[in-house]
Amino acid sequence: MSGTVKKNYVRPLDFKNGHIDMGHGAGGRASAQLIEELFLAAFDNDYLRQGNDGALLSLPPGRMVMATDAHVVSPLFFPGGDIGCLSVHGTINDVAMSGATPLYLSASFILEEGFPLAELKRIVESMAQASREAGVPVVTGDTKVVERGKGDGVFISTTGVGIVPEGVHIDGANARPGDAVFVSGHIGSHGMAIMAQRESLAFETEIVSDTAALHGLVAAMLAAVPRLRVLRDPTRGGLATTLNEIARQSNVGMLLEEKAIPVLPQVDAACELLGLDPLYVANEGKLIVICAEEDAAVLLDAMRAHPLGAHAARIGTVIEDAHGFVQMKTRFGGRRVVDWLSGEQLPRIC
Amino acid sequence: MSGTVKKNYVRPLDFKNGHIDMGHGAGGRASAQLIEELFLAAFDNDYLRQGNDGALLSLPPGRMVMATDAHVVSPLFFPGGDIGCLSVHGTINDVAMSGATPLYLSASFILEEGFPLAELKRIVESMAQASREAGVPVVTGDTKVVERGKGDGVFISTTGVGIVPEGVHIDGANARPGDAVFVSGHIGSHGMAIMAQRESLAFETEIVSDTAALHGLVAAMLAAVPRLRVLRDPTRGGLATTLNEIARQSNVGMLLEEKAIPVLPQVDAACELLGLDPLYVANEGKLIVICAEEDAAVLLDAMRAHPLGAHAARIGTVIEDAHGFVQMKTRFGGRRVVDWLSGEQLPRIC
Repeated sequence: MSGTVKKNYVRPLDFKNGHIDMGHGAGGRASAQLIEELFLAAFDNDYLRQGNDGALLSLPPGRMVMATDAHVVSPLFFPGGDIGCLSVHGTINDVAMSGATPLYLSASFILEEGFPLAELKRIVESMAQASREAGVPVVTGDTKVVERGKGDGVFISTTGVGIVPEGVHIDGANARPGDAVFVSGHIGSHGMAIMAQRESLAFETEIVSDTAALHGLVAAMLAAVPRLRVLRDPTRGGLATTLNEIARQSNVGMLLEEKAIPVLPQVDAACELLGLDPLYVANEGKLIVICAEEDAAVLLDAMRAHPLGAHAARIGTVIEDAHGFVQMKTRFGGRRVVDWLSGEQLPRIC
Repeated sequence: MSGTVKKNYVRPLDFKNGHIDMGHGAGGRASAQLIEELFLAAFDNDYLRQGNDGALLSLPPGRMVMATDAHVVSPLFFPGGDIGCLSVHGTINDVAMSGATPLYLSASFILEEGFPLAELKRIVESMAQASREAGVPVVTGDTKVVERGKGDGVFISTTGVGIVPEGVHIDGANARPGDAVFVSGHIGSHGMAIMAQRESLAFETEIVSDTAALHGLVAAMLAAVPRLRVLRDPTRGGLATTLNEIARQSNVGMLLEEKAIPVLPQVDAACELLGLDPLYVANEGKLIVICAEEDAAVLLDAMRAHPLGAHAARIGTVIEDAHGFVQMKTRFGGRRVVDWLSGEQLPRIC
C-alpha cells in the first residue's frame, strides 16, 4: 500500500453508486485514491500510515507463528457475517491454534471489475471492525483488479503473525492415548448458514454463522492449563476431517461419543434436509482441544467460563491405534469409523 | 496447510493430464493429496512439514517488516518468468525495500476449477526454485478452488516477513533536497515483456521480464552505504509513479535527466509501437534508491559491482518543491512535469 499519502482528488469516490474499474488496480492515482478513501479510512492505524511497501513492526521476543488463508466464500454476505470479518477471524484463529498471541495482519484483495463500491465498503468496514474488536491491526495490504468474469466480486487473502508465550508447546502431533478431546461449542453452524442462504432454506430459527476470533478463548484456556497438547479449528472438512488430521499426525486413534457432540437443532434439521453430516460441515468460531486426562476438568471449566466456550463439551478420548482411525459410539450403541471428508461436500464455504 | 501428514492415496495425482476440481479446495482428502504431492514436494522444508495451520518460526531480534502482494498477472507464463517466481520476487522485494533481510514467505493460492495440473506444477516449481535461490522459504500456505469462470487459472498472494538490521532507517519520507536519485538498471522490461506477449509482437531481440529478488543487491548497497534514505521498487505505475509517491511522502520535488534513464532499445521500440511511455511501465527487478550526495559515488560503485545493478545509473536529484512535482529535463533540452499514472495503462501486469 505505497502511495498512501494524502492528496486531493478531483472528486471523492462515489461509495453509493460507484464501481471498481481496472484503474483501481493499476497502481496509479485511482489506486492511491481507493487506498486512501477506503482502506486507510477504515483500518486507520499508524502502521498503514507509514505509507511504505512494507510495514515496520515491533515484536516481543519469542517464537513467531505465521499463518495465511485465502477467502473465497460465496455468497459474500451471510447470516452472522461476511467475507470481511471471516478473513480476519480465519487467520487470527490459525495463528491462535499454535497457542500464539496474534499481533498483526496483512490483507490482499483481488477485486472484480464492476464490483459495487458500496459492497466493498461494507466488507472493508466489517474487516476493520473485526480487527479492532480482536485487537489485531491490519498493517499492510495490496489490491489488484481483474476483468469482469475473471473473478467473483472479492477474494481476500489474509496473513497473520503472532508470538507463542514461553512454556507453550502445542502441536497436532502431541495427542497421547488417554487424553481428553473437547470441542468449544455447537458444530456446523458456519457451513449450514452458508448452505441455507445458497439454497434459500428458511427455518423458524435462523442459522447464523459462528465466525469469531478465538484467541481470547485460547488465552483463557492456556491461563488455566498451560500444557495443552493440541489445538485446531475445524474449518473446511469439519470436525471429522480435523480429528483425522490430528490422529494421523499424532499416530493415535480417537473414540468419540456421538451424543456428546453439540449440534444446534436447526443445524441438525438443515443437514438432514440437504443430506449432509454435521461432522463434515465447516466451523469458523470453534476449536478442538486435546489435553491430558488430569487437566480435563480444569480446562472444561475455563472454556465454559468464556463466552465463546459456553457450550464446550468433552466429545471423546484419544486411544491407541496404529491405523489412526477416528471411531464413534453412535446414539444407537454401535460403533462406526469417522473417515476423512472425500470430494467436495461444500465448495467455497470460507 | 494442515493435514499434511504422509498417507497413501488410491493413486497419485496425474500431473500430465489431470485438472483441478472443486474437491481440491474442500479441505478433505483431495486437498491433503494436492498439498502433499505438489506443494510439500516442491517447497520441501521443515516448516511446512510441521503440518499445523501456522508455521512456528525463529526470528532474530530487531524491527520486523511485513509486506503482502496479490499476483494476478496475465498471461501466467511470459518471457523471463511466470506468476510463480514473480510472486516470490515481488514480495521479497517489498520486504527488502525497507532495508530488511527477508526471512519467511507465506503463499495462498486461488485456483480455477479445470486448471491443468501440469501448469500448476510448473508454476509451483518455479516458485520453489525462486524461493530456494533467494534463500527465503515458503513456510505456510493455503489453497482454495473456485468454479470455472469465477477465477482465471491461478492467483497467488504472498506475504513476507523480515528483520531490519541495526542502524538502517529507510523510509519514503526521508528524501532531502540535494540527494542523489538512482535506478538500478534498464526500466520497463517486465511490463513490455507481458505486453509484447499479449499483443503477439515479435522483435529481433526478445523482451524478457526483469523479475528478480533484489534483497542481495540491497544488502550490498547497505554494506557500502548504511545510511541510505529511500528504497522502492517501481512496479505497477512504473518509475514515474513511484518517484511521485516518494516526492509526496518526503514533501520534495525531483529533477530527472531523461537521457540518463536506462531503457533497452527493444523496450523503447515496443513502447513506441504501442504508444506507451517506459516511465510508466512496470518493473519487477529494479529499484530506486535515494542517498545523500556525499554517498552517491560509493553507492553507484557498489550497485554496479552487483549483477542486478550492473546498469545502475544516477537519473536525477531531489530538489525543493512545496508542490511535490517530479520534473524532467528532456533529451531536447526542455523541461516537463512527470505526473502520476492516471487510469489503467497496463492491467494485470503483476
